[in-house]
Amino acid sequence: MKTDKMGEWRRTHYSSDVGPELDGKEVTVFGWVQEIRDLGGIRFLILQDKNGKVQITIHRDKADSKVLKKAESLQRQYSIGIKGVVRKMGKAPGGAEIIPNEMRIFGVAKQPLPLDITGRTRADIDVRLDARVLDLRREENQAIFRVQHAALEAARSFLSKQGFMEVFTPRIIVSATEGGSALFPVAYFKREAFLAQSPQLYKEQLILDFEKVFEIGPFFRAEESHTRRHLSEFISLDIEEAFATAEDVMKVLEELIHNVCKDVTGNCGRELKLLKHKIEVPKTPFKRFTYDEVLEELEEEKIHIPWGEDIPTPAFRLLGKLHPYYYFLTDWPTKAKAFYIKPRDDNPEISEGFDLMWRWVELSSGGTRIHSKDLLVKRLSEQGLSPESFKHHLQAFDYGMPPHAGWGLGLARLVMALTGIRNIRDVVLFPRDRFRLTP
Amino acid sequence: MKTDKMGEWRRTHYSSDVGPELDGKEVTVFGWVQEIRDLGGIRFLILQDKNGKVQITIHRDKADSKVLKKAESLQRQYSIGIKGVVRKMGKAPGGAEIIPNEMRIFGVAKQPLPLDITGRTRADIDVRLDARVLDLRREENQAIFRVQHAALEAARSFLSKQGFMEVFTPRIIVSATEGGSALFPVAYFKREAFLAQSPQLYKEQLILDFEKVFEIGPFFRAEESHTRRHLSEFISLDIEEAFATAEDVMKVLEELIHNVCKDVTGNCGRELKLLKHKIEVPKTPFKRFTYDEVLEELEEEKIHIPWGEDIPTPAFRLLGKLHPYYYFLTDWPTKAKAFYIKPRDDNPEISEGFDLMWRWVELSSGGTRIHSKDLLVKRLSEQGLSPESFKHHLQAFDYGMPPHAGWGLGLARLVMALTGIRNIRDVVLFPRDRFRLTP
Repeated sequence: MKTDKMGEWRRTHYSSDVGPELDGKEVTVFGWVQEIRDLGGIRFLILQDKNGKVQITIHRDKADSKVLKKAESLQRQYSIGIKGVVRKMGKAPGGAEIIPNEMRIFGVAKQPLPLDITGRTRADIDVRLDARVLDLRREENQAIFRVQHAALEAARSFLSKQGFMEVFTPRIIVSATEGGSALFPVAYFKREAFLAQSPQLYKEQLILDFEKVFEIGPFFRAEESHTRRHLSEFISLDIEEAFATAEDVMKVLEELIHNVCKDVTGNCGRELKLLKHKIEVPKTPFKRFTYDEVLEELEEEKIHIPWGEDIPTPAFRLLGKLHPYYYFLTDWPTKAKAFYIKPRDDNPEISEGFDLMWRWVELSSGGTRIHSKDLLVKRLSEQGLSPESFKHHLQAFDYGMPPHAGWGLGLARLVMALTGIRNIRDVVLFPRDRFRLTP
Repeated sequence: MKTDKMGEWRRTHYSSDVGPELDGKEVTVFGWVQEIRDLGGIRFLILQDKNGKVQITIHRDKADSKVLKKAESLQRQYSIGIKGVVRKMGKAPGGAEIIPNEMRIFGVAKQPLPLDITGRTRADIDVRLDARVLDLRREENQAIFRVQHAALEAARSFLSKQGFMEVFTPRIIVSATEGGSALFPVAYFKREAFLAQSPQLYKEQLILDFEKVFEIGPFFRAEESHTRRHLSEFISLDIEEAFATAEDVMKVLEELIHNVCKDVTGNCGRELKLLKHKIEVPKTPFKRFTYDEVLEELEEEKIHIPWGEDIPTPAFRLLGKLHPYYYFLTDWPTKAKAFYIKPRDDNPEISEGFDLMWRWVELSSGGTRIHSKDLLVKRLSEQGLSPESFKHHLQAFDYGMPPHAGWGLGLARLVMALTGIRNIRDVVLFPRDRFRLTP
């Protein structure tokens, strides 16, 4: 089917702008045909654009024959343009409809569509991911990413006001950033390299110059991503601050979460309504529980965790029931944390590392860093890592390394907390590319 | 040497806050020892922090003995904390100095340092990159990245106000995003994959849902990066817009550049002074030259380029002399552009692709995209690419693909334009990791 050119047509209004106050005014709207309802004498189109929906009403007896002909040929999800006159109409969504004088068809959609984005019953996840860009046209799905956008704006503006500078650290690296979890190998010209799993070492080095830095971007973890909480490619929000301790950056973190919740609540009313989710803006300071306190709580619930071991998911799920909001876990055993986390001076068995939890989800992890080169070398060896392969990082400790602290926050997990969405694949634009490479 | 703990000490003021108006007030400042000058009876320290420098003055006869002892042990680039009293002092930088009551040494610096960051003569690039985090402590280097931060803030706030939504597209992909330039192979579990060289195909798909999207983040190009303009890992600023043409997104681009220049000029006065660079905020619309006009200009300069071929660097350098500011190059030959750039309807030999130039540097490249599936398949074949390997992208054209356009902008090149820095390695935090992997 031949489509029309856009020519000189440009949108004058979004669907959300079309209300009774525009009664009688000519408008040009662009979007996709979400629904077609035929009542014999009248044909209703629901046009969807990024801001919402508007009703287009075509009266068979009055409508221009060209418009009528085009309207007959329309199918769901065609992209079209409408030039028409707004008419006040109580029954229509938004209290107004558009009576078209001209219509242009810009793009067709192959029928039948793999999924009905207007249907109440959601298609199976695999069907949805096979046609993800169509699936994303569901208003609820769009709402998720507008919430993410608002959260990012709030987080960046908060961090900038706090004097943090945005940085970009390398993704293609020579050796493990942190040791521990697996890395993806990359063929860098004739050399083997790896994809960075975090900006950890680089951001620690950069506090030597900029004192307060943050980075938001993709990082990579070669863990089979089949859980509902892990992604092999994920967006991390990281900060690092000089002359600061864990407690200092925990304050930054809880203030950031508070501001993000406040701004998202204020700017995403329509989105949260679509998602049927209410954000309760958390008061600061957040609750703080020590690792030992949590082990006792779990003991009472008949879950025994040997001291020093990490807390398994089922135990976290239970903690989420006991503490159904944001809370910090502090005083982790040193051996359960990464080599760069500072052991406490009064008791080296316990670290100055912390996690920020939202119910059962670990949102963020951070702590005071070791800033003594000797101690760092010792900790590397204790964790079976070779100081030699970290020599370029260790070199930075010869340039006046001050005390410092920081944390990393998983963006997708934050969006889950902000939207109430429980499957992480729903808060990632192209999860298939993360879980499996191709649809 | 044993260092001191930070304990309860926290910074009360940055160096830039210390002025005559604080005369007599006690302050706590943190930073690095940039200079030590000994005048017998008096020892001057210049303390540097992220916001500037402040003078610490120690009078041998009056100073506390502990402070005196510590001051004797100081070396350049040690990180220290000072509790002291501000004293008005016309000769001191900022019109005030600090008389210390207490001093703490947080981190030592190995002497001799590989480079003198206060010296007028800059060290050789290799020496600088071997000790990059020390090199970055030079105020001029810090200024570059604060300009970048201000530019990013200006760009994001402009795009958000224009209704663009921030997105994150996959970096690990199955097949070439654009064909053409080389890709880095990644071992994705048991499969071969590649690093994305741009968000091109994904951002085009996402306009089906969000209409106006932008992304700022790292992308990868396996080109030996030995020129002064290319990076194998680079930060790209991309936008894509539905129901828009090249001319529409060129307006977005020139407005963005205008706003970035305005905000950077307004917010980075100190930084631009340090860099001895003056930004002339460009008026919009920018000059537009067609490919044919440029070929004629070059012909007059005795440089002959056969019609249809790309413009080589020496020719661009000459154009930069003829047009010493921001300008667009339009009407590129279709065969010189990527497969997704739309040929003109009236003359398919010429495309709706454009470049934004700053002098001789190509800052950005974009155009109207092909939105007809049939034409796209035809163009893929013409460029020797297999439509089969693009089938997941082509699938999106079955969901009502509207006319759309967009562009990609290289952040490092923009920062070169904003700072007047001529070597791209100076505007990247860790260029060594891009040019060669290890120092």
